Amino acid sequence: MSVSFKYDPANERFLTETKGREPISIRDPFTKKEIYHTPTELLLLGMGGCSSDDILLILKKKRNDVSDFRCEVTGTRAETDPKTLTYANIHYIINGAVDEDSARKAIELSLSKYCSVSILAKRGGTDLRYTLTLNGKKIAEDEKA
Amino acid sequence: MSVSFKYDPANERFLTETKGREPISIRDPFTKKEIYHTPTELLLLGMGGCSSDDILLILKKKRNDVSDFRCEVTGTRAETDPKTLTYANIHYIINGAVDEDSARKAIELSLSKYCSVSILAKRGGTDLRYTLTLNGKKIAEDEKA
Repeated sequence: MSVSFKYDPANERFLTETKGREPISIRDPFTKKEIYHTPTELLLLGMGGCSSDDILLILKKKRNDVSDFRCEVTGTRAETDPKTLTYANIHYIINGAVDEDSARKAIELSLSKYCSVSILAKRGGTDLRYTLTLNGKKIAEDEKA
Repeated sequence: MSVSFKYDPANERFLTETKGREPISIRDPFTKKEIYHTPTELLLLGMGGCSSDDILLILKKKRNDVSDFRCEVTGTRAETDPKTLTYANIHYIINGAVDEDSARKAIELSLSKYCSVSILAKRGGTDLRYTLTLNGKKIAEDEKA
């Protein structure tokens, strides 16, 4: 697996050149244009993305019907170098004909067994948490993963 | 710090909705459209991105003149669940009036002290390596970080 990017000073960003993939812009260290995601934000997207993969697959397998799925990932970094991610909360916002217990178990299975990016962060010292909102109701909040 | 995305089945992807940021597409688990970066690829971009930030800043501070900068990040995942990143090589391809020793020291400083995403991965068990190509000459290859 391989990704690549170049520094693109004319457009004040890093620009990915990963073979076969749609280009993504990443914030550069000089202009720090706020429109572009930062490297740590990409890590949070990776954590939320791999976990969302698991949860949608598990819920589908268990014949739950997800009509709408959103994910918000909140993170905190250490105050001293290397300012690693000390805390992350993955909030799953799910609507549909989804069993509460299935959703909770899917999340726990993902964050303990399958989601490689989140589990790597957890092993690296991140306090990993999750929140679940199902059909507008908060089922779990900031629970230890 | 907070990012968010939704599942966008009509376009077969996850689509970011991070406030104030340009949208990014992420591969979904059903259609797995190859045009979109995967969650683990976002992790690799985060590792390469934060380290490139450090290196460009350090080289500039030391008055080296980088005319062209590219970065390729290669990764390997474990074969068994949770298939975390077991190996990563960040390859910096730099052209310009850059001192060999400055470049090498900037990389070592980044990967040991400053780059939060790479150091988190290293703490989580990733065998972190780097390669440096300076003005077309390979200065370091797959060195332990």
